[in-house]
Amino acid sequence: MTYCVAIKLDEGLVFASDSRTNAGVDQVSTYSKMHSFETDGERLFIVLTAGNLATTQAVVNRLKREMEEGVDGSFADAVHMSDAAEYLGRVNREEQEKHSEALSKSGIVAEATLLLGGQIRGGEPEIYRVYPQGNYITTSQHTPFLQIGESKYGKPILDRILAPSTPLGDAARCALVSIDSTMRSNLTVGPPIEVLVYETDSFAFEHYLCLEADDAYLRSLTHAWDENIRKAFVDLPRFDWETAGARKKRGTHVHAMPGRGTRKNSR
Amino acid sequence: MTYCVAIKLDEGLVFASDSRTNAGVDQVSTYSKMHSFETDGERLFIVLTAGNLATTQAVVNRLKREMEEGVDGSFADAVHMSDAAEYLGRVNREEQEKHSEALSKSGIVAEATLLLGGQIRGGEPEIYRVYPQGNYITTSQHTPFLQIGESKYGKPILDRILAPSTPLGDAARCALVSIDSTMRSNLTVGPPIEVLVYETDSFAFEHYLCLEADDAYLRSLTHAWDENIRKAFVDLPRFDWETAGARKKRGTHVHAMPGRGTRKNSR
Repeated sequence: MTYCVAIKLDEGLVFASDSRTNAGVDQVSTYSKMHSFETDGERLFIVLTAGNLATTQAVVNRLKREMEEGVDGSFADAVHMSDAAEYLGRVNREEQEKHSEALSKSGIVAEATLLLGGQIRGGEPEIYRVYPQGNYITTSQHTPFLQIGESKYGKPILDRILAPSTPLGDAARCALVSIDSTMRSNLTVGPPIEVLVYETDSFAFEHYLCLEADDAYLRSLTHAWDENIRKAFVDLPRFDWETAGARKKRGTHVHAMPGRGTRKNSR
Repeated sequence: MTYCVAIKLDEGLVFASDSRTNAGVDQVSTYSKMHSFETDGERLFIVLTAGNLATTQAVVNRLKREMEEGVDGSFADAVHMSDAAEYLGRVNREEQEKHSEALSKSGIVAEATLLLGGQIRGGEPEIYRVYPQGNYITTSQHTPFLQIGESKYGKPILDRILAPSTPLGDAARCALVSIDSTMRSNLTVGPPIEVLVYETDSFAFEHYLCLEADDAYLRSLTHAWDENIRKAFVDLPRFDWETAGARKKRGTHVHAMPGRGTRKNSR
């Protein structure tokens, strides 16, 4: 199904995405969901994509072309990041509407949801989640990240670890762990995993990784995380009954259980 | 939405459930989802419930009544655990069908999904997931747990930790951590959390806990887990660019990025 995450931190932005697409379990493919757009030192954008592949490819194609052609209101001359989000929402909606009549006759919905991040000279780095309907949201101090796709498996670790003050490297590791947890529990998310770390005011894509399944760093990270989780688990406090030694008589530790049905009137 | 988990281990069974129900965000209540049924030393059953509250209450009410009245084929005389699952599936389906016509006129689906666990003298402890349609599945060596309700947030930790050889106390802690992760990220799952640990061939509910939000053990467990997760995180391997010191020149660490659009023809 896809899983992508974008994080806004005091130090900059972190983006991470998987590369698995499917049109059913017998039609699995690999496509990047991370797309970058920049002009020299003035503005740069990252778009992460989820949803219908035909729609997202059409959207990305148009973003690229309109930027190269310098079309008004495109990524070429958006003044604020929110203007870029507004533009992206419009393109997303228009590309969906092109084929909507034929699609609805087949009972297919070709929606796409996108994450947009970047910085325009004179402004701060920002990230947005752009909905199929064209509207969008951004982050807050308390919610410094946005996700699209199969987001539930990987959300707990983001909730636990991330704050605006989290260093970029830690946030990138957190995103990777989040994707790793998702891949373990859901087959529609798969490698290669792409990670991009953007430092505020750098206006350059300095730190980018494309990690295949057998990538040495990815393997060492997921192995270390697995080991550390197990260690974390071993140290948790014991229940009373575990430290009490020999088995207690029935009833010693049983609180009144709700909804208790018995055949005889027994305790 | 509910979250319940049942685990089958070599040493016995573990059950855990939350207590939050809702009919919309302005109608949140607390009901136990764990229901126990036993006869003296011959058979005992735990049922965990998710889905429409009217349906699950009607089902539990009928299980209790038919067991007390010794109705043929009920929990009173099921020979095998799979017979008990078959029976539970039938009761579940029948209770849904009672009001299905009126419900469908209102566009409401009153489905319930259940977890059944227990042991009947002469057989092994087993657990089942019973669907709204009345059919059911059980566990395997590779998949020793079953979940119902809001299951995705809490699944990664179960996938990582649990095996049939996992000791009962560890499995119970794992279930609690799984529920804790879910509660952090989803408001429809809430305390009190109930945990029941069943030792094979004991035919008794010896270890049962009902943990309110401010329960001392729950607080110490979730605090310890939070601390341990952060420690686990700190120890993960660094990226190359973090250990490389001063910022590199543009291009040194950038692999060829797919889908790169630029306004000018720049690198």
